[in-house]
Amino acid sequence: MPMLADPSVKYKPFPPINLPNRQWPSKTMVKPPRWLSTDLRDGNQSLPDPMSVAEKKEYFKKLVDIGFKEIEVAFPSASQIDFDFTRFAVETAPADVAVQVLSPCREDLIKRTVESLTGAKKAIVHIYLATSDCFRNVVFGLSKEESKALAVKCTKLVRSLTKDDPKQSATQWDFEFSPETFSDTDMDYAIEVCEAVKEAWGPSEERPIIFNLPATVEMATPNIYADQIEYFATNITEREKIAISLHPHNDRGCSVAAAELGQLAGADRVEGCLFGNGERTGNVDLVTLALNLYTQGVSPLLDFSDINSVIDVVEKCNKIPVHARAPYGGSLVVCAFSGSHQDAIKKGFNVHQKKLQAAGGKNVHWQLPYLPLDPQDIGRTYEAIIRVNSQSGKGGSAWVILRNLELDLPRGLQVAFSKVVQERAEIKGQELTNEELCDLFKQEYFIDYEGESFEGQTYKLIDYSISTPSKGLKEVEAEISVDGKVVKIKGQGNGQLSAFNDALAKNLNIDIDVKHYHEHSLGVDAKSRAATYIEVTLNNKVARWGVGIHEDVSQASFLSLISILNGLHRNKDI
Amino acid sequence: MPMLADPSVKYKPFPPINLPNRQWPSKTMVKPPRWLSTDLRDGNQSLPDPMSVAEKKEYFKKLVDIGFKEIEVAFPSASQIDFDFTRFAVETAPADVAVQVLSPCREDLIKRTVESLTGAKKAIVHIYLATSDCFRNVVFGLSKEESKALAVKCTKLVRSLTKDDPKQSATQWDFEFSPETFSDTDMDYAIEVCEAVKEAWGPSEERPIIFNLPATVEMATPNIYADQIEYFATNITEREKIAISLHPHNDRGCSVAAAELGQLAGADRVEGCLFGNGERTGNVDLVTLALNLYTQGVSPLLDFSDINSVIDVVEKCNKIPVHARAPYGGSLVVCAFSGSHQDAIKKGFNVHQKKLQAAGGKNVHWQLPYLPLDPQDIGRTYEAIIRVNSQSGKGGSAWVILRNLELDLPRGLQVAFSKVVQERAEIKGQELTNEELCDLFKQEYFIDYEGESFEGQTYKLIDYSISTPSKGLKEVEAEISVDGKVVKIKGQGNGQLSAFNDALAKNLNIDIDVKHYHEHSLGVDAKSRAATYIEVTLNNKVARWGVGIHEDVSQASFLSLISILNGLHRNKDI
Repeated sequence: MPMLADPSVKYKPFPPINLPNRQWPSKTMVKPPRWLSTDLRDGNQSLPDPMSVAEKKEYFKKLVDIGFKEIEVAFPSASQIDFDFTRFAVETAPADVAVQVLSPCREDLIKRTVESLTGAKKAIVHIYLATSDCFRNVVFGLSKEESKALAVKCTKLVRSLTKDDPKQSATQWDFEFSPETFSDTDMDYAIEVCEAVKEAWGPSEERPIIFNLPATVEMATPNIYADQIEYFATNITEREKIAISLHPHNDRGCSVAAAELGQLAGADRVEGCLFGNGERTGNVDLVTLALNLYTQGVSPLLDFSDINSVIDVVEKCNKIPVHARAPYGGSLVVCAFSGSHQDAIKKGFNVHQKKLQAAGGKNVHWQLPYLPLDPQDIGRTYEAIIRVNSQSGKGGSAWVILRNLELDLPRGLQVAFSKVVQERAEIKGQELTNEELCDLFKQEYFIDYEGESFEGQTYKLIDYSISTPSKGLKEVEAEISVDGKVVKIKGQGNGQLSAFNDALAKNLNIDIDVKHYHEHSLGVDAKSRAATYIEVTLNNKVARWGVGIHEDVSQASFLSLISILNGLHRNKDI
Repeated sequence: MPMLADPSVKYKPFPPINLPNRQWPSKTMVKPPRWLSTDLRDGNQSLPDPMSVAEKKEYFKKLVDIGFKEIEVAFPSASQIDFDFTRFAVETAPADVAVQVLSPCREDLIKRTVESLTGAKKAIVHIYLATSDCFRNVVFGLSKEESKALAVKCTKLVRSLTKDDPKQSATQWDFEFSPETFSDTDMDYAIEVCEAVKEAWGPSEERPIIFNLPATVEMATPNIYADQIEYFATNITEREKIAISLHPHNDRGCSVAAAELGQLAGADRVEGCLFGNGERTGNVDLVTLALNLYTQGVSPLLDFSDINSVIDVVEKCNKIPVHARAPYGGSLVVCAFSGSHQDAIKKGFNVHQKKLQAAGGKNVHWQLPYLPLDPQDIGRTYEAIIRVNSQSGKGGSAWVILRNLELDLPRGLQVAFSKVVQERAEIKGQELTNEELCDLFKQEYFIDYEGESFEGQTYKLIDYSISTPSKGLKEVEAEISVDGKVVKIKGQGNGQLSAFNDALAKNLNIDIDVKHYHEHSLGVDAKSRAATYIEVTLNNKVARWGVGIHEDVSQASFLSLISILNGLHRNKDI
């Protein structure tokens, strides 16, 4: 292996947290967190093309519709656009939605920030300060004591401008403080700063202070983040007056896990963005977190029942596509291409339908192979689930035929048709669309729903009559067209089908044996048609399936045999 | 909130694992796992447009180049294409690379599968069988005893066809068994089946049997998966004769976490795909897992030093793009747009450069704000790190100017220029490219590297001379062009700059005061040029920066003042 000088020596392993009495791995998720969307702040600031004001407004409305009650809308002191949009949010937010804004620990910026919230019904002022050694030393050049003093000073300033100011009493004020980068900060120092900030703010059980503990950069396995949260939660005083908020980023691809394990470790609130937008690898994905709760039997209290409309707004405003494999929302995540998966899903659906019928349509737990979530719960259709390419087996194409043509193919026909499909898909080198698959089926079995003609369709049924010359004996007389020439045939047997078969043998010298016969009705009303599926062998050798569909079940069965004749002829077997 | 009937009632919470003596949360990652790429099997089978044979060959070569020693290449009994490609892999794999193939537990398919491996130097036969209740009952209709018996029978068949067959002795045979869906299987039953399979195969410490424990569908938080792995690893007998392999899927967005915690819990091996391709939400992403090890000071023994070439092959063959926010590989993950991030990164780089210089260029631990991995370690450049839009502050545009024009702007000029940038970015509504940013800087400060002309460039320096009429006194005579008209000016002062300034005041009636002066050289050779930066006030009110670049430092400083005159004139201040 042509390995260069190994870069791993440049990096230090993340030191473990001293947590001898660790509790979180034995906990389970039993309730949703308080959600904070920071799509319009942390999300927007990371976009190559930030949102226009119109896009921000559309996005804000969507967040409210989904059910977010806490929305971070801007960094109002950073630009006039951010300030103006905060005003829009303050003026249009429903009474139960808190508008949150961010400010660094600078007096002039804090004043401007609070100004942007004037008149809000519910507002959260969020300030942040570097507490990690790296950020304190490299970026800000502040000692630990200086940083703590600055945090306290700024907290007092926010307090004097908000809840302590009688002119601001129309607003319900909350306060959030973020020690940055918490995940890289000495835990005891983080707690020391937060204790001081807590005292400066003066929270109550009814109006707890929010301590946001960001993994500004994800630096270790997610169990370490959970350890950090549990350490903080068990060592901070007056825990009941605190809401612990998580703000994981995804640098190591574990932000969802970090948020979930962090909740097990005691956190009350999660900050993130829809579909994981945000700086670098993104903030934690709130869609995944919320829908993960569904499948644990917990309601997220967010409405993603029409996930496609959420995707539309997110993609339009962020101008970054939701990835095809994004959990829940990705275009490929309710698809199965492989034969064994398709087969399992098809069987699972059948079992589920039967259970639903038996239970009167409700209270049936969802348990389907390869589908952890019912696609209908997020407004996705079943049609997309099974898609067919050269990797697909019988189950997949059979599913598509069932869903689109209502034809419930017998197993032998599924196998036969899957070979036709595989061949076509390998030639195409691409997935077959449902339409292509249905067309292929109709061509292969000469099914002329609307009187279509197919290549190689040599035989056609023109008319027929059935009589009973003696008890237990059927006689079929039929006119068929062979290559455009009308031929009359006649035969007898103990049933209609054997009589028709006899006619073929006597008049056309075609010696076929019926091996399998299946039939079912299509649709539910009186005018429903019948589908028949027949497998024959020719001269005890070549086997072939035929399909016939007609309102008259006899004619449907004759059409199945005609379908077989055409197939045999096209393959030069007759 | 317009919440529909809450779908969460359809789902059951995942039951916890009984693991009273849990050890994994106190473990750390100290070595890389054995890696198995299943890009060509599990990855390929999930693609809407599966790989062509040529693409598979290119992909296989890339996997070998990266350093994979175990590669699952196909499901050879499924199609001729898969069989043929297995033959290609067997014939071209280096001697130290094991070719792995998958088969279901069916006698005919196993025979065909082993046939595809004939003559391999190292081969791994991988068979799978449903062990979860859901799959056993719904999909296969087999009892627990029947499933176990089938697993044993098929294991014995593989054994008889491979390591027990004297004709096969040229190949080093290994065996992998997957209880599907392990993560949803009763743990004691999974162990019971694996004990029986182990006995049937007869592994040794030197050639351990591989038990692959897939999260075929991710069904719970990743700590539960780790609990399952630890339960399996501590309860199976002859642990030393077993390699435990992880195969996490990403339905809940936690596959990377599951693989990492699963390794802490005792697993030896990980199966996945590059950039997380695979069924539905994908297999676990091996690029992220490997590079996560880097940043913990552990070498992954895989070579991603040229990650762009890996992305090229993956995107070409899978026809699915790597997402812009994918860890390590995404186009946006080494970018910062926000001002505070850019500022922090810029400061961090300066500190890191100084440490490197002091240490003679080596043994400096990487510790940079917002950049957990040095982009150069994966072949990405620093140029992309800082990109500028309307959310950016002074640090970002200053960085781009420094990296592209070698101009190290003084802080005051950074602030002044950032306002120009923000205005332009808001008008554009999009990110500015580095080129646009450099052009904007040149236009704003009239820097005509190649004799360019700029809009509003009223003043030009034609020629000048400097004399010393008396000790300590400088006299400058210069010809400048004002709107195309040549004007001669003359002034005196105690330095060249004040003399030139005096000339402007006396001859053109422009009263400017120099507030700040900075200069630095550009480049390192004798012909290097000087850059000068001057801030002045006009009539003690309007402030403006100018920039001049010339091989002659005096001329550079005069050009800075000319730059200021042009700026003041364009703004109608003079």
